[in-house]
Amino acid sequence: MAFLAMCALACATAFPAGSEATIEQRFDAELNVADLNTWLKDMTAEPNHVGSPHDKANAELVRDQFRQWGWDARIEVFYALYPTLKHHTLELIAPTKYVAALEEPAIAGDATSARTDGLAPYLAYAGDGDVTGDLVYVNYGMQEDYNELARRGVDVRGRIVIARYGSNWRGLIPRLAQSHGAIGCIIYSDPQRDGYAVGEVYPKGSWRPAQSVQRGSVIDLPIYPGDPLTPGIGATKNAKRLAVADAKTILKIPAIAISYGDAEPLLAALEGPVAPATWRGALPITYHIGPGPGKVHLEVTSDWSLKPLYDVIAKIRGGEVPDEWILRGNHRDAWVFGAVDPLAGHGAMMAEAKAIGALMKAGWHPRRTLVYASWDGEEPGLLGSTEWAEAHAEELRRKAVVYVNSDVILRGFVSLSGSHSLQALANDVSRTVKDPETGVSVGERLRAKRLVDAYNKSAKLPSAEADVPMEALGSGSDFAPFLLHLGIASLNVEYAGLLQSDGGVSHSNYDSYDHYVRFGDPTHAYGIAEAQTVGHIVLRLADASVLPLQFGPFAATVQGYVTELHELADRRARATEDLTRLLDRDAFRLATDPLQPMLAPEREAPVPALDFAVLDEASVRLKQSAREYDDRYARFIAADGKLSATRAKRLNDLLRGMERSLTSERGLPGREWHKHLIYAPGLYTGYVAKTLPGVREAIEQTRWDDANRFIVLTAEALERYTQRLREARELL
Amino acid sequence: MAFLAMCALACATAFPAGSEATIEQRFDAELNVADLNTWLKDMTAEPNHVGSPHDKANAELVRDQFRQWGWDARIEVFYALYPTLKHHTLELIAPTKYVAALEEPAIAGDATSARTDGLAPYLAYAGDGDVTGDLVYVNYGMQEDYNELARRGVDVRGRIVIARYGSNWRGLIPRLAQSHGAIGCIIYSDPQRDGYAVGEVYPKGSWRPAQSVQRGSVIDLPIYPGDPLTPGIGATKNAKRLAVADAKTILKIPAIAISYGDAEPLLAALEGPVAPATWRGALPITYHIGPGPGKVHLEVTSDWSLKPLYDVIAKIRGGEVPDEWILRGNHRDAWVFGAVDPLAGHGAMMAEAKAIGALMKAGWHPRRTLVYASWDGEEPGLLGSTEWAEAHAEELRRKAVVYVNSDVILRGFVSLSGSHSLQALANDVSRTVKDPETGVSVGERLRAKRLVDAYNKSAKLPSAEADVPMEALGSGSDFAPFLLHLGIASLNVEYAGLLQSDGGVSHSNYDSYDHYVRFGDPTHAYGIAEAQTVGHIVLRLADASVLPLQFGPFAATVQGYVTELHELADRRARATEDLTRLLDRDAFRLATDPLQPMLAPEREAPVPALDFAVLDEASVRLKQSAREYDDRYARFIAADGKLSATRAKRLNDLLRGMERSLTSERGLPGREWHKHLIYAPGLYTGYVAKTLPGVREAIEQTRWDDANRFIVLTAEALERYTQRLREARELL
Repeated sequence: MAFLAMCALACATAFPAGSEATIEQRFDAELNVADLNTWLKDMTAEPNHVGSPHDKANAELVRDQFRQWGWDARIEVFYALYPTLKHHTLELIAPTKYVAALEEPAIAGDATSARTDGLAPYLAYAGDGDVTGDLVYVNYGMQEDYNELARRGVDVRGRIVIARYGSNWRGLIPRLAQSHGAIGCIIYSDPQRDGYAVGEVYPKGSWRPAQSVQRGSVIDLPIYPGDPLTPGIGATKNAKRLAVADAKTILKIPAIAISYGDAEPLLAALEGPVAPATWRGALPITYHIGPGPGKVHLEVTSDWSLKPLYDVIAKIRGGEVPDEWILRGNHRDAWVFGAVDPLAGHGAMMAEAKAIGALMKAGWHPRRTLVYASWDGEEPGLLGSTEWAEAHAEELRRKAVVYVNSDVILRGFVSLSGSHSLQALANDVSRTVKDPETGVSVGERLRAKRLVDAYNKSAKLPSAEADVPMEALGSGSDFAPFLLHLGIASLNVEYAGLLQSDGGVSHSNYDSYDHYVRFGDPTHAYGIAEAQTVGHIVLRLADASVLPLQFGPFAATVQGYVTELHELADRRARATEDLTRLLDRDAFRLATDPLQPMLAPEREAPVPALDFAVLDEASVRLKQSAREYDDRYARFIAADGKLSATRAKRLNDLLRGMERSLTSERGLPGREWHKHLIYAPGLYTGYVAKTLPGVREAIEQTRWDDANRFIVLTAEALERYTQRLREARELL
Repeated sequence: MAFLAMCALACATAFPAGSEATIEQRFDAELNVADLNTWLKDMTAEPNHVGSPHDKANAELVRDQFRQWGWDARIEVFYALYPTLKHHTLELIAPTKYVAALEEPAIAGDATSARTDGLAPYLAYAGDGDVTGDLVYVNYGMQEDYNELARRGVDVRGRIVIARYGSNWRGLIPRLAQSHGAIGCIIYSDPQRDGYAVGEVYPKGSWRPAQSVQRGSVIDLPIYPGDPLTPGIGATKNAKRLAVADAKTILKIPAIAISYGDAEPLLAALEGPVAPATWRGALPITYHIGPGPGKVHLEVTSDWSLKPLYDVIAKIRGGEVPDEWILRGNHRDAWVFGAVDPLAGHGAMMAEAKAIGALMKAGWHPRRTLVYASWDGEEPGLLGSTEWAEAHAEELRRKAVVYVNSDVILRGFVSLSGSHSLQALANDVSRTVKDPETGVSVGERLRAKRLVDAYNKSAKLPSAEADVPMEALGSGSDFAPFLLHLGIASLNVEYAGLLQSDGGVSHSNYDSYDHYVRFGDPTHAYGIAEAQTVGHIVLRLADASVLPLQFGPFAATVQGYVTELHELADRRARATEDLTRLLDRDAFRLATDPLQPMLAPEREAPVPALDFAVLDEASVRLKQSAREYDDRYARFIAADGKLSATRAKRLNDLLRGMERSLTSERGLPGREWHKHLIYAPGLYTGYVAKTLPGVREAIEQTRWDDANRFIVLTAEALERYTQRLREARELL
């Protein structure tokens, strides 16, 4: 067992290429599709939502499996406010009558779809209420849609809005409806993006059938995730809790999710202005805005009790530096059966853990501590991960090096996103994992896709050799508390991106084992690729003498963000000037059809000059220091360099704290839980990141004082980062 | 009658503002909506297609009216090959059965829709045939769509294609189908652009109902318009004719136009690859490409006899320079009743003629000869105008100054297009005509729309004061023979552009008086605006001592076109290099889904360098000369300058011949009828212009020798133009 001897040497120093490759090969050899298939089938056999018997049973299964593989595993229980549906009704009461079915029927060939113990289609954290009002179609229900409504003289006050899914975080839809005075909110899946317009519907094809509903949470995720009653602290049994009425992330108005089968009669009952072209979906009707004459009655009542969350936390104590933790997680709870979301990804994580257990039995031991987590309650609002991160915040701030997340795994392309100091590592690993369907590495395949995408858009081709730039992380999965609240460098690694496999039963009764093995990843080959990709990342992080972080990609990315801010401010200033010119000429009235009048947009105050100088300078200094560090690191690796244990510890301490130097204890305006100054979920996007959010959102929302304040705060964070990087370089 | 005395003076010199305005006011006072309403109602009372009794009756009515108003009017008859439908069948024979209705039923509230003597829905100049084959959906049926099919391994040979309307000239659809080996072609109106997705259907709203069909011609218009049997010569009774089999503009395969009601069962019978996102329409199905399993039987038989064309030609001989002709035309024939297309526009032309007659009776007389034309046979292929232009080519080349066309008139914005030497005149007039619904001038309203359109696209705002640039003319209405074959400067002046009034019954049984007065232009206010706009243009052209042409706009436009050619060649070269890079890396295979394979595009030969120098230089010289001429002209007008009759004649002769100096007797490659080197209908766009077509299409179609040859020919034409302009300047 030559690799063991090599490892014993390697693990005390930088990780020599030979042994790294050998361990990874050995790791890969432990992965097998039979495991993935068995776990998926077993774990999706019954409904798995928070509080369901099978969710708890799965937690116990996972704990027991990890133990069997040699991990120190236990279940950690939290108690979060998680409303479940008691009763709801939706009916069209004028000008015609229609009672919404609100049910997802059994489908032939889908074994679990006939079960009746799953969660009914509903929106968690919608308000209780019984309301009746005229209907208004609000497109995706985003702020720009309300601007369009205002220009058409349509007001939603005292009315019930109907919006289609598809733009941003679903919770924004009822939140914006509520803030505009609506008394209720309906969200439906339009077949344009999520049904027959994209592909044949289930069971003929994979796409959403007429009666299928996308359940989901409407918690106010961009404010803070986790239990609404315990922001910033762990929701332990005796934690101090807010009153429900005081929780900032809970909606007041009732809201409901429905199918396009139920939506069509409601939309067909609207008159008033014809919806703008970009608002039209794929139902065979003329989309009107209303209000009315369609009038609906909506009633929602939930059970607002606390529910238990069962996080499974499994550890392997590091052999040399046990206080440096490599975290890895995937959630386990689902809306119903959850084959694609989340149990395929969860299975890949289990496969990693089993393989690591096998490596341990063969004598290998990680230098650093590994912490694997099977999160509960992700779907309602990242409950399990957030409560655990908050409960253990102090220890995590001291020990956590990196958090690696996954969630949805399908056939397709590797998707890498997260902290840009991990971009080089993630790309390196992507070059070593073979794509199951093409024979090239998953990194090479991703680069090919980027080339073809650019070619198809007639855009400049990216370099075919360079690393693939990573997207920033926003929210919507369990990385959020680690990255955005605690400032722990994080990665999200998934596979997806082929239309044939991506669609289309998200958060429905049909996200089942049968659907997954017909469409999602029939051979589990991408489950294996996921386990390899994340496994290799974890192994390299666990064993490298010097943490394999590189900073050039981060510096280049930040410079790009700063350029975007300049452009955003310039564009905004120009748009305001243009608007003023047009208003002064009465151009909007003249350009409109007097028979279908459109009001002019509201006048805007001029955009003041912003002083980006400190941010520009910080970005330049960061770039210089990053280049110097990366050059030194490259030479160190090339020379197979060695560091004393003390020096390695000091260096790794500095590296581990880099990400946290990007946070501000005071957080972002109006949502102090979010401490990261480089990445955040957009307040009006939800899932999608806003980068340099303190500045960017202030410009977007014309909060000029905040913009100037956060230019300084962000520049200071970058300067801290740069300073730390210089110190680190000195130690290498 | 002060304005007459002023005119007697003014007409011998430049047109002083006072008298011009007075004559135009007097002209305007003669226009009235009652006339427009009466003519529209009478002329649309029965079907008006070529060869129908009412078409002839309308010709006689128009002739008699013009005579009554003091014009020298007569009917000129031509005999053109114009196939009318004898019989057709379309049926789905597998995997299910469906027989297409191919009928447009009566609609309540639409008085003429119940008549049964109109033309059945069909495609004129489709081949006769009886074919059966598997169906293939080809999107818009353009070349890029066939490229997509090829990448999916789908071949149309021996099959029947189904395409939706919406991209380019309809005749290209069966022509391309035929050239790719299809044995039949079906074209339908998808509700996405032409039905319920845009607005409520008739009679609830204006848009195309499920059984409505867009008839039309599939003559090969970009090759040559007019009678297919007499290219280049007038189709007089005894003209020498080609055999039908030798006519280059007639299709060989059968083709049919159908409604979306009839299309849905056919499209629903397709399997095979799911259509790409941009190919999807608004029917509530998953759009597949096929081929099959839907199999159809299509049979079409036409009556291929010659039919008479009744052009009404009305003249007022010019008082001072009778050999300088100002031409004005609008077609009169329709597919069925033709309220919007063409009789509303035709009514505006009649109103101009009546008002001019009234001015004549009051003592005014135009300096130049006016020729008003009511064209027959425009719908099948610009038959009436082309045959007349060809029959009188020699005289027109000597005498014609300008041709002003119109066709479709609806509520909305003025639309100005044509020869750019007329841009300043058209813009000047647009500043004097009041928009009926907003109170500002139609030019100001158009500028407001351009500002708002740019603002909505976040584009740079255009100047709010400058003239509105005119679009180049391609084909699709009666300007084509005058501008593109004879080189007579032409303008097209229409009103449209409001969604509420634009839609949606083109070429159907429902383009009726009842539809028009509900949606199109209920008060005929835009018919009046059209008559004012064109009338003022005609009056200014008829009476100005120096023809009111200005050349700066043409020079600037040509410079823009030349820049586009550079960019096109550069883009093409880069795209070819990029494609080669991607093919060399096998990127297309790697980026595709192995379960839905896409072949890589074909390799392309490298783009050779093109030498644009002579064209660049010609464009620069043109710009200089244009500026000098326009400056001189502006001073002449400002000084109320006078020219001797001899000098004015020499100058106007030069100006009249300017446009023709842009033509080449040898014409464009493969379509010698088209002689204009600046404007042409695209060979693969049909209606839409390709500017500098000899060069542009050669680059697009990788005919590099042609590209180089036409760079020189086009540069030579511009140099001729410039030389003539210099001579003209010397005379001013």
